Amino acid sequence: MASDKRIGVSAAEQAEIAALRAEAHETRRATVPALEEILYRPIPVLDHGFVRVVDYLGDDGAIVQAARVSYGKGTKTVSSDRGLIRYLMRHRHTTPFEMCEIKLHVKLPILVARQWIRHRTANVNEYSARYSILDHEFYLPAPEHLAPQSAANRQGREGEIPEAEKREMRDQIAELSDRAYQLYETLLNETLAGEVVDDRRTGLARELARMVLPTNTYTQWYWKVDLHNLFHFLSLRADAHAQYEIRAYAEAICGIVEKWVPAAWGAFADYRLGGADFSKPALGVLRGLIDETRLADEAYLEGLREKSGLSAREFREFLAALKGG
Amino acid sequence: MASDKRIGVSAAEQAEIAALRAEAHETRRATVPALEEILYRPIPVLDHGFVRVVDYLGDDGAIVQAARVSYGKGTKTVSSDRGLIRYLMRHRHTTPFEMCEIKLHVKLPILVARQWIRHRTANVNEYSARYSILDHEFYLPAPEHLAPQSAANRQGREGEIPEAEKREMRDQIAELSDRAYQLYETLLNETLAGEVVDDRRTGLARELARMVLPTNTYTQWYWKVDLHNLFHFLSLRADAHAQYEIRAYAEAICGIVEKWVPAAWGAFADYRLGGADFSKPALGVLRGLIDETRLADEAYLEGLREKSGLSAREFREFLAALKGG
Amino acid sequence: MASDKRIGVSAAEQAEIAALRAEAHETRRATVPALEEILYRPIPVLDHGFVRVVDYLGDDGAIVQAARVSYGKGTKTVSSDRGLIRYLMRHRHTTPFEMCEIKLHVKLPILVARQWIRHRTANVNEYSARYSILDHEFYLPAPEHLAPQSAANRQGREGEIPEAEKREMRDQIAELSDRAYQLYETLLNETLAGEVVDDRRTGLARELARMVLPTNTYTQWYWKVDLHNLFHFLSLRADAHAQYEIRAYAEAICGIVEKWVPAAWGAFADYRLGGADFSKPALGVLRGLIDETRLADEAYLEGLREKSGLSAREFREFLAALKGG
Amino acid sequence: MASDKRIGVSAAEQAEIAALRAEAHETRRATVPALEEILYRPIPVLDHGFVRVVDYLGDDGAIVQAARVSYGKGTKTVSSDRGLIRYLMRHRHTTPFEMCEIKLHVKLPILVARQWIRHRTANVNEYSARYSILDHEFYLPAPEHLAPQSAANRQGREGEIPEAEKREMRDQIAELSDRAYQLYETLLNETLAGEVVDDRRTGLARELARMVLPTNTYTQWYWKVDLHNLFHFLSLRADAHAQYEIRAYAEAICGIVEKWVPAAWGAFADYRLGGADFSKPALGVLRGLIDETRLADEAYLEGLREKSGLSAREFREFLAALKGG
Repeated sequence: MASDKRIGVSAAEQAEIAALRAEAHETRRATVPALEEILYRPIPVLDHGFVRVVDYLGDDGAIVQAARVSYGKGTKTVSSDRGLIRYLMRHRHTTPFEMCEIKLHVKLPILVARQWIRHRTANVNEYSARYSILDHEFYLPAPEHLAPQSAANRQGREGEIPEAEKREMRDQIAELSDRAYQLYETLLNETLAGEVVDDRRTGLARELARMVLPTNTYTQWYWKVDLHNLFHFLSLRADAHAQYEIRAYAEAICGIVEKWVPAAWGAFADYRLGGADFSKPALGVLRGLIDETRLADEAYLEGLREKSGLSAREFREFLAALKGG
Repeated sequence: MASDKRIGVSAAEQAEIAALRAEAHETRRATVPALEEILYRPIPVLDHGFVRVVDYLGDDGAIVQAARVSYGKGTKTVSSDRGLIRYLMRHRHTTPFEMCEIKLHVKLPILVARQWIRHRTANVNEYSARYSILDHEFYLPAPEHLAPQSAANRQGREGEIPEAEKREMRDQIAELSDRAYQLYETLLNETLAGEVVDDRRTGLARELARMVLPTNTYTQWYWKVDLHNLFHFLSLRADAHAQYEIRAYAEAICGIVEKWVPAAWGAFADYRLGGADFSKPALGVLRGLIDETRLADEAYLEGLREKSGLSAREFREFLAALKGG
Repeated sequence: MASDKRIGVSAAEQAEIAALRAEAHETRRATVPALEEILYRPIPVLDHGFVRVVDYLGDDGAIVQAARVSYGKGTKTVSSDRGLIRYLMRHRHTTPFEMCEIKLHVKLPILVARQWIRHRTANVNEYSARYSILDHEFYLPAPEHLAPQSAANRQGREGEIPEAEKREMRDQIAELSDRAYQLYETLLNETLAGEVVDDRRTGLARELARMVLPTNTYTQWYWKVDLHNLFHFLSLRADAHAQYEIRAYAEAICGIVEKWVPAAWGAFADYRLGGADFSKPALGVLRGLIDETRLADEAYLEGLREKSGLSAREFREFLAALKGG
Repeated sequence: MASDKRIGVSAAEQAEIAALRAEAHETRRATVPALEEILYRPIPVLDHGFVRVVDYLGDDGAIVQAARVSYGKGTKTVSSDRGLIRYLMRHRHTTPFEMCEIKLHVKLPILVARQWIRHRTANVNEYSARYSILDHEFYLPAPEHLAPQSAANRQGREGEIPEAEKREMRDQIAELSDRAYQLYETLLNETLAGEVVDDRRTGLARELARMVLPTNTYTQWYWKVDLHNLFHFLSLRADAHAQYEIRAYAEAICGIVEKWVPAAWGAFADYRLGGADFSKPALGVLRGLIDETRLADEAYLEGLREKSGLSAREFREFLAALKGG
């Protein structure tokens, strides 16, 4: 088994993953075949990062089961489950979504890790650079992701940088990263492979030597989170305002969630990712833009409703919100 | 100083409150005169309950100060502060709101306490019925709050109960509550005043005897929470779907928050309490209801914007969300 | 399949449980046969309560895997895993224990639920008495658990109550509980079976009628928690200072944890449940009680160490703490 | 007012701090003069870092008040308050300690921030390097803090590095840090002062350019935490096993806490910082080291107790734990 340089996984690590994937246990627990299919396998993100599912607990049925506090599966039919899940999402009954849990192994630049860790309701074990030597791997943005400071948005990027300048930037970032790693080894007086650099020197403790590594250095962690808090993470980090680098991870995780809990994912995509919040003054403006003739035309409304796929109840709730209840 | 039976505060307790209110300390901390004015004073809720502010930390300026990680006050002008606070609320930058904290003393029926405690990100110290004897105080709903099960909503109340039936219900609830309290004293073999009921009996431990008290019995606690999590509590509990009894507390707290952090309260009222979320399919319906002629009429739009009080930037964001970006 | 009155599980619920137990899925996930064996099956607690495991994630190996942030199982040998787990427990490296998760379905008196819910780092879905009618089941303490207020401890029970008085107490508690339930049905104007009590009456909403039920009424919930927070719960609730009723649940859960993660359980039992904390002044007293001759006798010390099963390293750490480092 | 280079606070920032310190408000809230004395003033830590108290809520009395759920101050006498606080600490009744809150402004290397942020139960607002340009300030360890990897402890430092090698290390770290900062400005095409570096270039967005800065770069944040969680932080980070750099901050905070809540601090110092946990097997060893004659000598025991300052009750609890029961 060859190493996968793309995601910085060595041949030995590949073999460990393959061994886990070859195991088969019998269980009475809720099991999701589509997630079993990708279990343990790294999904590449950025230039050397990955996300891989290491374990999970629950499925769409577990959300229904918890909402009903039931003795059995909690499920009646797929369609009634889907309806209940959409109801829970719509009315922000969030606790049943906390009854599903997923554990991921993530390789990510320190830069991204620093944003990610701000989500507090999750469990984390990070690779310890006090204990071990970090790999020589750093994030070098692809040319298409290098962009100038946004003029409109004080905290984003927008626009174009000339190709020649981009090339130079990438060279400079790579050069600095390499230089920092060399100094890291010099300070440690030890290479990643465990060889002494200079046997006349003493070397510095790992917890100190790491301080020279830039924040584009890759780290890795185990991250475990419940589905409700994962949705909250995704609503902020799969959003267009999030920095591209963490968004790339969020989007990879969206693909995982869709396999894991398709009904909950559908509800999340409709009510959170694809929806919009309007403030009280914005609702006032909205009312000034509505065509009152259409709003009074029952047949027209029913046509809109059918096309939208909204249930009669949801449609009533929508009209009430629009008219101002 | 007389006891206030209305809120079940004894004369001795009234005196303790008055003593605290009479104190004056000098501080360099941010101070909110409107909140100082009501500090320690119980605000009645339901028939024997109350909410009173025991302490607080921060003000509107503290939100700005934290958002800017500034050395001084963080404030420039009241209007720029207000603008920043509205921006933070709109874009769900929630952490600066966590930099304000409030501590409340609340007297509430066990029934309400059981819903309230589900909000986990808060600090709580409840009066211990293992340690002390509970007062003989129970919640008896006012006639106007007695209503039948809602037909439309499986978990609410709606409609009317005949007056005679209401009277009977109130009598029955009061009678059961009294009987339960009498048994409580019998089991304890001790009255609230500390007198032995029957000196031939041994009596039961407090942690056991309390089990016969119904959930309309009043308890009390100290509850401390940051402003972000308080807003989350209010958005769920000051909502029309919340049970009336907890909503009564939420509404009393809304009045407190308005005094404490008027700018943050205003943003919350506009963006959360008074706003609406539309799902992706609902946005589709909405687009089918818009009068395209008005939407293309720049002068008409500007008129709507001015009337709404939205800033030019907010208005652009609103139109983008409406058109689907 | 007959209903199990002992734990208030109906025949239909028993059948649902049996159906789940009959399922067998193939999984690549870490699986614990000893826990699969008892999966879904209610373990009786108190007179009508139970705990049953509904799902779990991880095993002893998962703790090691997370501590090492490894690609494969993380395990080398059973004995080295056990050593690492004990090291983590001893040094309060708590995050790897958060990488295991368990989901329980619990039936418990409201009284116990109110203590339990104070543990905030967990996920809960409680049976809703706004939505459904509660069963006629209440906790009636067995005679051996009725005891007077402790004289030494302001919040416990201790000593004996005469048998005749106990009989009377149990009759009184049962009588009040029945009467409260009858009033509950009268107020609802509906029985648990869904029959109207009196068709000339309107009835009260469920969210209100429940207020007359005493706190010995049984409720139920799904509760999901990670292993670290579960250990914290157990250290407080399986303790002799905890009220007997919640301790009964904690002890049932101890039995479950022992099956699930035997190495972590062993470490917890040695370092937390069976250990002791000594304050700084207490350590001073301790030093005054040590036999200095024995402390200086290397052979004697080695004999003690061997008998204790402590590793050489742990023993050194122990002596250092004792001598005051 | 001159800038304080030592802690990287500019003259303008010093003036902002002085302005806040000059304010005096009247408040009815619990106020701690010893903390007011140092309010807003930076306490230097490491070479350019600091901790400063920005706000606080509660005092020793607030712990007592919450434990008693009282209407007034909750205090009787200073000595009875102290006794209750020690009782709460000893029995791990942690919730009353959550009723005090403190807000700090901290300047710290990213390296330290990454360890600190692992404490999840706190509120944080970090200076945003997406929004603003970071200062040219980095941590350069003092010679006495440069040490080799510990041989005994896989994650610590221990021993000595020759002076010449230390000098070289410091030069190398400084040189790399400067070079990284220069590249940061080059990539931004803008200096900290806001000047364009080269007007023929476009420059890179701030959120990307920062990736080249090493983790010894200083960042800053507002950090707000309750006293219970602060004690937990201090028990781990003021410990000899913590990395020196974060320990330096923890020790500065210990000094603050001692001023703020002297009774709670005293209890924490005795029961946590200065105490020791013994495992079940260690207790077995301990019993083998006890001089049984002394243990049976009442007068000797009473002498030890008096010297220790333990109350009679605490002493009994201690002996019970020692004898095992």
